[in-house]
Amino acid sequence: MLDAALAQLVRHGYDSLSIDVVAERSGVHRTTVYRRWRDVGGLLADVLHEASVDAWRPPDTGSLEGDLLAVNHEVQTGLTTDPVTVALIAASFRSEQAAEALRAFWADRYDRCADIVRRAVERGEIPAGTDARRLLVAATAPLYHELVLMRVAADARLPDRAARDAATAARAGAFTDR
Amino acid sequence: MLDAALAQLVRHGYDSLSIDVVAERSGVHRTTVYRRWRDVGGLLADVLHEASVDAWRPPDTGSLEGDLLAVNHEVQTGLTTDPVTVALIAASFRSEQAAEALRAFWADRYDRCADIVRRAVERGEIPAGTDARRLLVAATAPLYHELVLMRVAADARLPDRAARDAATAARAGAFTDR
Repeated sequence: MLDAALAQLVRHGYDSLSIDVVAERSGVHRTTVYRRWRDVGGLLADVLHEASVDAWRPPDTGSLEGDLLAVNHEVQTGLTTDPVTVALIAASFRSEQAAEALRAFWADRYDRCADIVRRAVERGEIPAGTDARRLLVAATAPLYHELVLMRVAADARLPDRAARDAATAARAGAFTDR
Repeated sequence: MLDAALAQLVRHGYDSLSIDVVAERSGVHRTTVYRRWRDVGGLLADVLHEASVDAWRPPDTGSLEGDLLAVNHEVQTGLTTDPVTVALIAASFRSEQAAEALRAFWADRYDRCADIVRRAVERGEIPAGTDARRLLVAATAPLYHELVLMRVAADARLPDRAARDAATAARAGAFTDR
């Protein structure tokens, strides 16, 4: 049912998504779909929840810059080749429940990525007290800004530059508490 | 007519916006509204175009960090107190024309803000060859990321931190071509 819902969302957009359509596309009786989700927001929240319970772990390349590069390439690939990601972001502007689920999904991903920052501090690459979330947002936010909000054409150098710029900033003592 | 359209967008959302509603709210005959915009996307594009032809100039406080702080406070105020900004961003996911207009609006703002970077280079604060757009996106993107995409509650320290982190990065030589 989730697959049917996502396929519909990606192909025909949020407005086309209804419990009835998902029931029809998945061949499941509409009463069953209603019982599980009640509405489209609940369905999208479930999609994101499914995505959060995976075993994803952040890359561990041996350097801060290498780890951030790997994360950013994953983000850029998601934003440019996986239509689900952008469709879910667009849906988050339509449904409070989808917005909350997306927020929780990202919060979980940033939490897991805190290991990248912890290891960089342990290796002495960046100062103790570097705020993991601030550093990780600095590395990834330019990708979302350019690709999702500004909608510029994907530039292969973008993930590398954003990762290197954030690593340079962290080494210079940015992202420490003040 | 633009004011009527914006008020409707902010209060009742994109789905409520139609040429007929704008005609009714503004007291202008619908034929006149149709002649001017044809559809809702054209209307939103016009709203953004109006906003771009202003005389806005970037702050000039005498330091890179001061200028970025001032810009970021303006961005955060826009995103947290002006419902039009977020409504237009949300609409950009529904209308190609609105998306293109928003892209052009931001591109124009980043172009004007290049003066901030040029002056910082002239003062010797940051290396020649610092990419203005990359530096400006690094300073502002965390605000859009946290407030628009992640929808966290506004934190008064967010604009200051993002501005200082970007200035620290620029002084350390980030945002130079490579």
